[in-house]
Amino acid sequence: MKAKLTVIKIGGEIINNSEKLDSFLSDFSRLDEPKILIHGGGKIATALSAKLGIETRMHEGRRITSKENLDVVTMVYAGLINKNITASLQSRECNAIGLSGADANTILASKRPLKPTDYGFVGDIQSINSKVIDTFIENQMVPIFSAICHDGKGLLLNTNADTIATEIAIAMSAKYDTELIYCFDKKGVLMDVNDEDSVVENINTEGYRNLREQNVIHDGMLPKMENAFHALNNNVSKVMIGNTNFIKNRTEAHTLLTL
Amino acid sequence: MKAKLTVIKIGGEIINNSEKLDSFLSDFSRLDEPKILIHGGGKIATALSAKLGIETRMHEGRRITSKENLDVVTMVYAGLINKNITASLQSRECNAIGLSGADANTILASKRPLKPTDYGFVGDIQSINSKVIDTFIENQMVPIFSAICHDGKGLLLNTNADTIATEIAIAMSAKYDTELIYCFDKKGVLMDVNDEDSVVENINTEGYRNLREQNVIHDGMLPKMENAFHALNNNVSKVMIGNTNFIKNRTEAHTLLTL
Repeated sequence: MKAKLTVIKIGGEIINNSEKLDSFLSDFSRLDEPKILIHGGGKIATALSAKLGIETRMHEGRRITSKENLDVVTMVYAGLINKNITASLQSRECNAIGLSGADANTILASKRPLKPTDYGFVGDIQSINSKVIDTFIENQMVPIFSAICHDGKGLLLNTNADTIATEIAIAMSAKYDTELIYCFDKKGVLMDVNDEDSVVENINTEGYRNLREQNVIHDGMLPKMENAFHALNNNVSKVMIGNTNFIKNRTEAHTLLTL
Repeated sequence: MKAKLTVIKIGGEIINNSEKLDSFLSDFSRLDEPKILIHGGGKIATALSAKLGIETRMHEGRRITSKENLDVVTMVYAGLINKNITASLQSRECNAIGLSGADANTILASKRPLKPTDYGFVGDIQSINSKVIDTFIENQMVPIFSAICHDGKGLLLNTNADTIATEIAIAMSAKYDTELIYCFDKKGVLMDVNDEDSVVENINTEGYRNLREQNVIHDGMLPKMENAFHALNNNVSKVMIGNTNFIKNRTEAHTLLTL
């Protein structure tokens, strides 16, 4: 039987709220090992860009990463947020090691093609170095990934944190019975976005198709769901979506995804 | 016989000059392994602070690290500089892993006492986790340390990069025949600071005392020399001071320190 591995991704909403982040890190440190955390960046990068007079350009709701933006997210994600999370976990007896995809060549990405839209310094994941990630785990370290990858040619690339979590979970599934949790500010997928008690507890492939047709799942939730089913189709054992309460207590409401 | 290990510290003058840094990283990548790099921060942090309207306060020539300054150096040292150096080395077939002292609890520091002078979030090194640093080395990784440590209680601390290099070299000497090189913009210790050809090629304990009395060694060079002799007194095999030419070619002029 394979050993269990928990892969958790936390979004900007948690990082923006220091009380919530603190409480999450406390819960995360108490989870059984092995485990891996992937974090996004949140508003800090946007706020820093604004202070520095750097424009944040968007195309169809997606951020364009200029060279100046890349420097800001490298500073904020891989520096400020990653090292503070790591230090905080270390104080909770969790042997965290903060990483970007460049570190020990853990995640190789390629710069997204300029056509049809030039998103700038944005990376699409090429490969996950599961062997080296496992070296950390086997040496009792807990990898904490910021959403910065590299192209192997010296370039850092801004990469979607949900996608990193998904691809890491898939890669680690060869050795581990892997559970993937997308943790954000809602209790799960909601039938009514304004009603926190309308959590859809189970979604399978067919249910997903129906919810999409009913327009219950749209916008930002769509790529998350695509990632989730991509993980399930590639040997990840279990995929869940929930908020921080669910990390503390697994009986709390959440959405469980199955094929 | 112990295996050899090279520990190199590069200062801000090299980091500030992208051409020099590039050329250094190219030379560093070609050095025999195992090896460890420690880097300072240079002017980028000061420039970013200025842009953000954050005051950089000094006391007797030493920087005071406010909470805002700490956030800036964490972003610049552990984020921007550390990850760009790591990605650049990865493109040169050097399996770099960028670290702060918080990562895998590699360097534990304590916040400097408030008396006689409150330097803010500045760390004095308490211990080096040579075992975990060696885990990286044994797994063919090349540790790249930024000068940010942690106190084990969740606090990040700005720490002198020369001191980190010295303490890492000392800690690794138990297992390795360790060579420590402080790499900066001069060819070595100069008899006449305005004459690059006046390198003092050899300095021993007595020579150091004389050079100090003659005021040849003063100001910024004093703590570097104290670090160097501290290393030699604690089992580091060889300590050298030189510029990047010396890293490329060991027959170039440099200062060799001996007891």
